[in-house]
Amino acid sequence: MTESQQEAFHCPIPKETSEKISLSHGGGGRMMNRLIQQYIEPLYQQPGFCHQDSAVLNLDTARIAFTSDSYVVHPIFFPGGDIGKLAVCGTINDLAMAGAVPRFLSLAFILEEGFPLASFEKILSSIQKTAHECQVEIVTGDTKVVDKNKADGIYINTTGLGYVPTGVNLGPSSIQAGDAILLSGDLGRHGVAVMSSRDATEAEVAIESDCAPLDQPIQKLLTNNIDIHCLRDLTRGGLASALNELAKEAQMSVLLEDSKIPVHPRVAAYCEILGIEPYYLANEGRFICILPSSQVTQALECLEGGTLIGYVEAGDPGWVRLRTEWGTERILPMLLGEPLPRIC
Amino acid sequence: MTESQQEAFHCPIPKETSEKISLSHGGGGRMMNRLIQQYIEPLYQQPGFCHQDSAVLNLDTARIAFTSDSYVVHPIFFPGGDIGKLAVCGTINDLAMAGAVPRFLSLAFILEEGFPLASFEKILSSIQKTAHECQVEIVTGDTKVVDKNKADGIYINTTGLGYVPTGVNLGPSSIQAGDAILLSGDLGRHGVAVMSSRDATEAEVAIESDCAPLDQPIQKLLTNNIDIHCLRDLTRGGLASALNELAKEAQMSVLLEDSKIPVHPRVAAYCEILGIEPYYLANEGRFICILPSSQVTQALECLEGGTLIGYVEAGDPGWVRLRTEWGTERILPMLLGEPLPRIC
Repeated sequence: MTESQQEAFHCPIPKETSEKISLSHGGGGRMMNRLIQQYIEPLYQQPGFCHQDSAVLNLDTARIAFTSDSYVVHPIFFPGGDIGKLAVCGTINDLAMAGAVPRFLSLAFILEEGFPLASFEKILSSIQKTAHECQVEIVTGDTKVVDKNKADGIYINTTGLGYVPTGVNLGPSSIQAGDAILLSGDLGRHGVAVMSSRDATEAEVAIESDCAPLDQPIQKLLTNNIDIHCLRDLTRGGLASALNELAKEAQMSVLLEDSKIPVHPRVAAYCEILGIEPYYLANEGRFICILPSSQVTQALECLEGGTLIGYVEAGDPGWVRLRTEWGTERILPMLLGEPLPRIC
Repeated sequence: MTESQQEAFHCPIPKETSEKISLSHGGGGRMMNRLIQQYIEPLYQQPGFCHQDSAVLNLDTARIAFTSDSYVVHPIFFPGGDIGKLAVCGTINDLAMAGAVPRFLSLAFILEEGFPLASFEKILSSIQKTAHECQVEIVTGDTKVVDKNKADGIYINTTGLGYVPTGVNLGPSSIQAGDAILLSGDLGRHGVAVMSSRDATEAEVAIESDCAPLDQPIQKLLTNNIDIHCLRDLTRGGLASALNELAKEAQMSVLLEDSKIPVHPRVAAYCEILGIEPYYLANEGRFICILPSSQVTQALECLEGGTLIGYVEAGDPGWVRLRTEWGTERILPMLLGEPLPRIC
């Protein structure tokens, strides 16, 4: 039988359903196959991989970094990015924080019935662009569709694989008293960009998300033989939560210099209006690097936009203190919950 | 400062929020940490892994199988299983279909605000039990919380890693004309179990889901030197969709014997009432094994419950035909969409 006979037999796929996601797009039939072939398959560098249940990969190392994150950011498009760019950057950054070189990504979508295909295409294009920039391959994935009002347009899970070069052993257990804390850039842009675009009642702020892949800056530090003890990206809960967690895990305390922590004036103003501290705002392209104080100068030469913001101290395990401009100290506690839900 | 001083400083976590999931449980603060420590951390065999952004793993092989699936089944509890058991089995089965030995899982939750913690605990316990049975380690994960009415209780993504033993190369490109098709058990139990428990208007059927891990039966075939050409589990779209996909990918046709395909009488009756064909029903513990016809007897000795249901033929690429009891043939086409949405 010819292709056209087959098409006639199978009866054509209805046209009117093609502008929005329908439940049939997740049903494992021809509608789903067409969605995958037309929209998702172009993301795979080795076509055909996505037809298999698993991708079989060659990684020339026995030490593998493995991380998974779901992205539920609201709204899905925000100044400086969208959920697609975020889903690639976020997972690449988690690999990078282990000192790993990112290599492969899986991509699993939960789509809401009625989600516009045009928005889906836009998000897929962001994913492809970001993955290409970071030289990671998308090798496997999944697509599910849920009924209307059972999701919020689109949720994405990306899971990443990378290899950890020999000799790289980063983590809170490597942190030592006296270590310096470097911050890779100014704080709070992602939180403010998402929050201010959320609805019309929020103050509008001309600020773009810092959402960006961090593997390159970290590989630069590592290849320049900086003896990094620990890295952490400052996502949900921001700088304050990340440092509280690390201080607790390392059983040490942290002293930060308030005046040294860069915050854009518009971010600072937004925080003042809403009564939020920028140290708790989510970032998607910022990290802290904890390293011997003797290496600070050399590290700052490699790390564009980096700043020394404080030190690790022995004693008072789990506490993070902030020295203000007036020389007084206050505690920066771990928050109870997120001031800005669904930031990533 | 002592622990109790810290607790006093941080102010206690409110009690009344502890029976249901709240947005703060996903906010990256103390509420989320407590949720993870109390409920999710016990799933990790190597405690502390989940505090890291990535798990760093040692896999003594260069050939890795990598697969990702999101689970959105409705209802989340069904006869014979729940979304937790399904999320572990489904991903392990995808690894098993590549001939891989499953080793590691990631576990990412999207929880709806208000989801009962008691249900979450029940699901976590299923996950732990199934992972333990399959000897896979849960090594990394993620927890997000979305607003009420923006999910359906709980969605789970599991991503799996396994190693592919040397010499194992399964896939549609290995399929040859004359190959036999074995089916590992009767069809449609999962679809009927989920569908019939969905709401009171559906016919109630005393049938349990076939949801089960398939790594053991497949390893048994491989270690008994069965020369498997291709494996496929029969999830969304069922036997008919799986064979249509394989026939297309292998550029061959398939001829099945209707009378040889086992279907439980209660599943058959349910299908007749609703006008559904059992060949399109989802299964979560059934697979087909395509292999040289000379190995059928030996393979069936290893595969408990297995049956020979048909053969691969040259010509008519992409077509699946079914020979009825009366000797006539009809075509089993690929469906347009899923007759039963949200089956997995």
